[in-house]
Amino acid sequence: MNKKAKTAISPTRTEDYPEWYQQVIKHADLAETSPVRGCMVIKPWGYALWENMQRGLDKMFKETGHRNAYFPLFIPMSYLEKEAEHVEGFAKECAVVTHHRLEPDPETGGLRPASPLEEPLIVRPTSETIIGAMYAKWVQSYRDLPILINQWANVVRWEMRTRLFLRTAEFLWQEGHTVHATREEALEETYKMLDVYADFAENHMAVPVIRGEKTAGERFPGADMTVSIEAMMQDRKALQAGTSHFLGQNFAKAQDITFQDQNGEVAHAWTTSWGVSTRLIGALIMTHADDDGMVMPPKIAPAHAVILPIYRDDEARTAVLEYCHQLRDQLQQQAYAGRAVEVEIDDRDLRGGEKKWHHVKRGVPLRIEVGPKDLAKDAVFLARRDTGEQSSVPRQQLVDQLGSMLEQIQQSLFDRALELRQQHTAEISNEADFRSYFTPQNAQDPEIHGGFALSHFASEQDVQPLLDELKVTIRCIPLEDNEQPGTCFLTGKPAEKRAVFAKAY
Amino acid sequence: MNKKAKTAISPTRTEDYPEWYQQVIKHADLAETSPVRGCMVIKPWGYALWENMQRGLDKMFKETGHRNAYFPLFIPMSYLEKEAEHVEGFAKECAVVTHHRLEPDPETGGLRPASPLEEPLIVRPTSETIIGAMYAKWVQSYRDLPILINQWANVVRWEMRTRLFLRTAEFLWQEGHTVHATREEALEETYKMLDVYADFAENHMAVPVIRGEKTAGERFPGADMTVSIEAMMQDRKALQAGTSHFLGQNFAKAQDITFQDQNGEVAHAWTTSWGVSTRLIGALIMTHADDDGMVMPPKIAPAHAVILPIYRDDEARTAVLEYCHQLRDQLQQQAYAGRAVEVEIDDRDLRGGEKKWHHVKRGVPLRIEVGPKDLAKDAVFLARRDTGEQSSVPRQQLVDQLGSMLEQIQQSLFDRALELRQQHTAEISNEADFRSYFTPQNAQDPEIHGGFALSHFASEQDVQPLLDELKVTIRCIPLEDNEQPGTCFLTGKPAEKRAVFAKAY
Repeated sequence: MNKKAKTAISPTRTEDYPEWYQQVIKHADLAETSPVRGCMVIKPWGYALWENMQRGLDKMFKETGHRNAYFPLFIPMSYLEKEAEHVEGFAKECAVVTHHRLEPDPETGGLRPASPLEEPLIVRPTSETIIGAMYAKWVQSYRDLPILINQWANVVRWEMRTRLFLRTAEFLWQEGHTVHATREEALEETYKMLDVYADFAENHMAVPVIRGEKTAGERFPGADMTVSIEAMMQDRKALQAGTSHFLGQNFAKAQDITFQDQNGEVAHAWTTSWGVSTRLIGALIMTHADDDGMVMPPKIAPAHAVILPIYRDDEARTAVLEYCHQLRDQLQQQAYAGRAVEVEIDDRDLRGGEKKWHHVKRGVPLRIEVGPKDLAKDAVFLARRDTGEQSSVPRQQLVDQLGSMLEQIQQSLFDRALELRQQHTAEISNEADFRSYFTPQNAQDPEIHGGFALSHFASEQDVQPLLDELKVTIRCIPLEDNEQPGTCFLTGKPAEKRAVFAKAY
Repeated sequence: MNKKAKTAISPTRTEDYPEWYQQVIKHADLAETSPVRGCMVIKPWGYALWENMQRGLDKMFKETGHRNAYFPLFIPMSYLEKEAEHVEGFAKECAVVTHHRLEPDPETGGLRPASPLEEPLIVRPTSETIIGAMYAKWVQSYRDLPILINQWANVVRWEMRTRLFLRTAEFLWQEGHTVHATREEALEETYKMLDVYADFAENHMAVPVIRGEKTAGERFPGADMTVSIEAMMQDRKALQAGTSHFLGQNFAKAQDITFQDQNGEVAHAWTTSWGVSTRLIGALIMTHADDDGMVMPPKIAPAHAVILPIYRDDEARTAVLEYCHQLRDQLQQQAYAGRAVEVEIDDRDLRGGEKKWHHVKRGVPLRIEVGPKDLAKDAVFLARRDTGEQSSVPRQQLVDQLGSMLEQIQQSLFDRALELRQQHTAEISNEADFRSYFTPQNAQDPEIHGGFALSHFASEQDVQPLLDELKVTIRCIPLEDNEQPGTCFLTGKPAEKRAVFAKAY
């Protein structure tokens, strides 16, 4: 992958993929670890990316009839206990608030917790139980349904091994929580939001995904069905990028969400929940970044282009800067994907090379350099971040073609990612091939294996021991192109569907 | 204030102001209390208002050079201890996380906290200490300055007596945190952000404010100077609507935020912080709402207008609804204050009166009713929420004048609020007048008193006993029109400035 003598990120992907990931985040200035165990600091460049992702998703949520609201950060411990599978799933990773005051500690001279709470509070790991308690009050009649609410919030899951964006104790996310009168409507909502996520991943993030259903063992704790979108990272591992849960009547029964139907009879409602998080930024990095750093898809890039003025003396400086400002104004009058184009001018007093690499590492889609010679020709030096292509382009041509150039970049990032997934996806139909597919072929490169295996299987229990041995998981049972029955790759039993098997984040 | 026989909100403001406030929130569907002590649920209509306020403020922050980022929810207890006054100010109202797991409790059959943390974590009441710890790492040289970062977040302060929006255990806010090389720059930033807040309050929320400096006793814990904006509510009490703190070098010294200056010498930096919160919604309600419910200023209203189709039979229904949809499309092509006009159509199957009052109580600026007779005239029945004025208006005239109507409403809300404040502000120069001003004149109406007193004072200590007796506070020392020296209203000592004295939320 590394054609240049020297790359901006060291190690490269092939040298040490996990460390490369951390270094991209560092050099692109996206985030860093904080002194608080497992909690990250999202830096301005990373947060601007998240804001653009939020804006895109929020628009889609509103277009599908949802509205935002805000519910408490804390959940009484007793609420979590109401749904048995749910508490089982989250009890081991809860931050628990037990006191509400600090007092001087005579022993240490410092402080200590004082005033114990009557009931401990859990910092929300997800909000089904607290939101459900409100819905139980709000829902009386079929006229109150459906309830279609989303919340943008922070949540906490006390992870022991953390990794920036992918797995942190605190993360940012959105969680949709809906209530419906019928099973059919709730199922429709579950799939609709999965489609919204797939649309966003593919058309905004340029990340191709497979939509599928989770097996019983991989479901959200308390759900009847979980569907997800799964993406392939450049190391061929899978990353679950969003989930949508059909909760059946489980939470409605645990929390007494009932309504009077049109015949005057009281029934339990049907609920769903669905979420994506800052984990998506991890998916974005591992899909598009390269050995020179981050590569931002134009639709969600914090800036579409950066202009670097180049000059040696004050006289040139004035003329070049004026030209750059005019150019920026012209470019910013263009729109791309419904958003005014955003252009930065970097006129900091730094060496040209240092500046250039700064923006390469941060992944700005287009880099525009303007020096006295360009000015004389009324042209600019233009470089594409995704391909590295560079050329001299007349100013007016750049202005006229800016939108289509950005669209080309967006499309080519998607195509490249899809090609990678297609290259590393195989239909596997027997144990020997399956073992070999997930066994690194090169002892020096223990991370690299086949990729996604598409295999029929009859029972989760049957295959689990082999999966544990190979550190492989069932990612999902794809919803599309999955009509052909066959036989289980391991047991030979008849099997209706294929699943995607993969190593995963 | 109540001219009608019956009001939509009961009690009215004059009958029971505090209860009126709660009822407005309830009937306007803005928020409600949650089962978690002191935490509120912000409902979709209230949250949409907050989103509009966020959008307006965020734009102003970005225009003044700030960028958003995100820092951890948790603060290690030892961090809070670093700044002595700061911990003193917040220790009594902290939510403390002490455990990170739940386990079955054999005694109760339920759960109990397990796995104590090595060091307790505080749920952030404000983030100076955790953000400062990051800044200490980021700032090395004068070239790294200034740092101009804002965060949108939830914070927790364990309040004993809570009230929706005004005082809740958890609330939403923004907190700006900046670092500067010089005292002058940090002071300039402190005042600049105060001006941004005043601009937002007056020109977006239509809430007139007084900009002023807090006395030593009312400063933010750890600050060298706090400036605030203060607004008068309809019960003549003051509400602090935003604060900006000049932190001097206090936090920089406590947290070791140092930099090498242009001469190569190491110096402590100068920091500021500034914030506004969902408390602003409380200010908005108590400034504009009336005995029929909420009144939304158009610039931040979740919807500018609502169209109510009126018909008795199916034939009329089709024609009326088609007309209403065309009208909405026409109106939504208009813009007001840089935002496309938002128009709802309410065609729910409810009685006309019920529907009308629903939108009156929620405070939609314009109500448009369309029935078969209006349609025949190509006109609509139009009602202004702020004044109650109503008239038949030709459709095209409504479309043409929509923007200027909304601007009129916005301006008239501001004017009305300013007039109230002016009516209830007096210059008071002796103790007898001061006592009488803050003593209710009518035994049946213990809440009503004079309002804001503008009085010279020489020393906070001198006046404090009287203020405690009367339950009055020094709101601020106004920055404008305050050049005239005088003598303290209580002691007669020479005094340079006047302060605003008021009862306050």
